[in-house]
Amino acid sequence: MKAVRLHEIGGPQKLVVDEVPQPQPQAGETLVHVRAGSLNHREVFITQGLYPNITLPCILGADGAGEADGQAVVVDPTIGWGEDERAWSMDAHILGVPRDGTFAEYVCVPATNVHEKPEHLSFEEAAALPLAGVTAFRATFTRGELRPGETILITGIGGGVQTFVLLYAKAVGARVVVTSGSDEKLERAKALGADIAVNYKTDADWHKTVRKAAGTIDVAVDSAGGETFSKCTAIVRPGGRIVTYGGTTGDAKIRMFPVFWHQLDIRGSSMGSPKDFRAMLDFVSKHKIKPVIDRVYGMNDVVAAAERMNEAGQFGKIVLRMAP
Amino acid sequence: MKAVRLHEIGGPQKLVVDEVPQPQPQAGETLVHVRAGSLNHREVFITQGLYPNITLPCILGADGAGEADGQAVVVDPTIGWGEDERAWSMDAHILGVPRDGTFAEYVCVPATNVHEKPEHLSFEEAAALPLAGVTAFRATFTRGELRPGETILITGIGGGVQTFVLLYAKAVGARVVVTSGSDEKLERAKALGADIAVNYKTDADWHKTVRKAAGTIDVAVDSAGGETFSKCTAIVRPGGRIVTYGGTTGDAKIRMFPVFWHQLDIRGSSMGSPKDFRAMLDFVSKHKIKPVIDRVYGMNDVVAAAERMNEAGQFGKIVLRMAP
Repeated sequence: MKAVRLHEIGGPQKLVVDEVPQPQPQAGETLVHVRAGSLNHREVFITQGLYPNITLPCILGADGAGEADGQAVVVDPTIGWGEDERAWSMDAHILGVPRDGTFAEYVCVPATNVHEKPEHLSFEEAAALPLAGVTAFRATFTRGELRPGETILITGIGGGVQTFVLLYAKAVGARVVVTSGSDEKLERAKALGADIAVNYKTDADWHKTVRKAAGTIDVAVDSAGGETFSKCTAIVRPGGRIVTYGGTTGDAKIRMFPVFWHQLDIRGSSMGSPKDFRAMLDFVSKHKIKPVIDRVYGMNDVVAAAERMNEAGQFGKIVLRMAP
Repeated sequence: MKAVRLHEIGGPQKLVVDEVPQPQPQAGETLVHVRAGSLNHREVFITQGLYPNITLPCILGADGAGEADGQAVVVDPTIGWGEDERAWSMDAHILGVPRDGTFAEYVCVPATNVHEKPEHLSFEEAAALPLAGVTAFRATFTRGELRPGETILITGIGGGVQTFVLLYAKAVGARVVVTSGSDEKLERAKALGADIAVNYKTDADWHKTVRKAAGTIDVAVDSAGGETFSKCTAIVRPGGRIVTYGGTTGDAKIRMFPVFWHQLDIRGSSMGSPKDFRAMLDFVSKHKIKPVIDRVYGMNDVVAAAERMNEAGQFGKIVLRMAP
C-alpha cells in the first residue's frame, strides 16, 4: 500500500510517499481502508523533530475516515484515554507516531476507536473532523461549559480547532467574538456567523476593543498562550472561564488579582475522552455541522499540504485524499 | 461607645481608640453588641492606604461575634454578594471600610448577615471565624472540591485562611502537605495534623521535594502568587486543581504546557457567598472545629495586634476583645 512516511527530521519537505506492506490487525484491532485524512500542527511539529519519542521511519496522520467491515467510518485519534474524564492517562497517545497513522491506504486501530461516519459528511469532510473536532468540543462544552446566549471569545481564528469552536458556538446560539491578524480570516469568520471580529495586529489594545464591543465575555478559548492568554484573564467577566488548549506563543505572565478577585476559572484542555468523541459526533450529526475545509490535496502533494499548514495561511482544515 | 478608627494613612501605628456615637440600625439592619473581633491582612493594608475608596476617619474590622436581640451571634462579613454563586457582584463589599466595621462596641449590619454563633465556640473563637473561615471554606470545598482521601498542598502555612484550610482538610480525611519559611510554623502545622511539611526557604526546589514526598497532589491552595503559584502548576496531578485566593508576592509566569496537557483547573476564589457562609458554620459545628488563635489583645492594644499581623509572625488568628 501507499503511505506518507518521514525518514528524517527536517520539516515538511522530508515527507515522502512510500510503498509499504499493508498492516495486519492484531487482537482487538480493526483494519480501516482510509479514504481521506487531514493535517494537524502535530504532523508539522513531528517533521521538525518537536515531539518526543519519534521513531523513524514512521507513518504520520491522526485523522482519518474510510471504510471498515463494509461500513463508512471515522477514527477517534485518542488511544488509551483511561478511566478519568478529567484528564487523560499518562499512557495515552495520539494516533500517528509512535504508532503508525492514517496517512496511508490502510491503518490498524483499536476497534473501540472506530465510529460510524456522520451521514451528512463526505469522507473528506469526515476526515477533517476527529482531532480538531473533539479538541474543540471538549474545550467549548466539557471544559468551557458554553451555554446558549453566552458570549465566547475565540483568539486567533483560522486553524481547525478555532473554526470548529465557532461553528459549535453558533449552533447552540452563543454570541461569538473572534480575533485574527488577518482581515481576510476575520471576513471569513464573519461569513460563518462571527458576531464581532477584531484584528490584533492593527490594534495593540485589541482586548479592550473586544471588551468594549462585546460588553460581557463569558468564555474565552485560546491556544496562543503568552500575552494573548494574559489579556484574556483581564477581560472575561467575573466568574468567567478561560480554556487553554495550547501555548504556541509561549509562557504567560498573569496578574493574580483579576484571577482571584473575579473568581475566574482557567481550564486546561487537550484532545477529548471517548465520551467527548461520541458526544461530538452526535452533536455534529444533530446540527448538521460541516467542517470548514481550506483545501484538499492528493496524497502525492503531502509536502505542499504540510507547508501550507506550516505557513499558517489556511482557514479551516487541510485535507489529504489517500489517492494520487 | 469605643471604636478603633483610622484618621490618616501611615500603617498600624495610626490606629486609635476613639469615643464615638453608638450607631442606629436602619431598616433591614441589626445592631450587634460586639464582644470580640479578629484581624485580617485587609486592616493592615487599609492603614497603609493599599485599598481603594478609603474615607477617613473610619471604623475598621470585618470579623465580629457578639450579641443581638438576646442571641449569641457571628457576622458574615460579605455584604451584597448577589445572585451568582460563581462570583460576587461588582457592588459587593467587605464589612469595615467604607462601611463602619466590627472593631467597636456596636456595629450595624444587614439582618441577613447575622447568624447564630456555633455553640462550641467562645466569642473570641467565633470572632476568629468569619472572613478567614469562609474564604478557606470556599477555597477548599466550593472551588477546590476537596474529597476524603485526596492530598491537598497548602502553601505558606501560618495565616488565618491557611490554618482553616488545614483544619477543614483533616476534618474530611484528606492528606495535608504544608510549606512555610519557618520551621516553628511547620512544627505547629504538624501538631494540627499536617502529614508532610517542607521549608521553602532552605529548599529552593521545595516543589520537587513536595511532589516526591506526596506522590500525588490533587489540590493546591495558594495566596502567594508569583513563583510559588507557578511551581504549583508544575506539581499538581493531571486533572488537578489549583485554587488562588491572593497574590502577595506578585504576578506569576506560567508555562502553558502543563496547564493544557495535564488538563489542570486554576480557580480564583474570594470570600464566600451567603450559601458558603452557612455551609461553613454547619461544617464547623458538625466537626467541632476550633479556630487556631495566635494571641488575644485588648482593644487598647490594637496597634500591637496590627503590627504583629504586619510582621507575619503569627500562627492562626489574632483576636481583639472589645474591652480594654
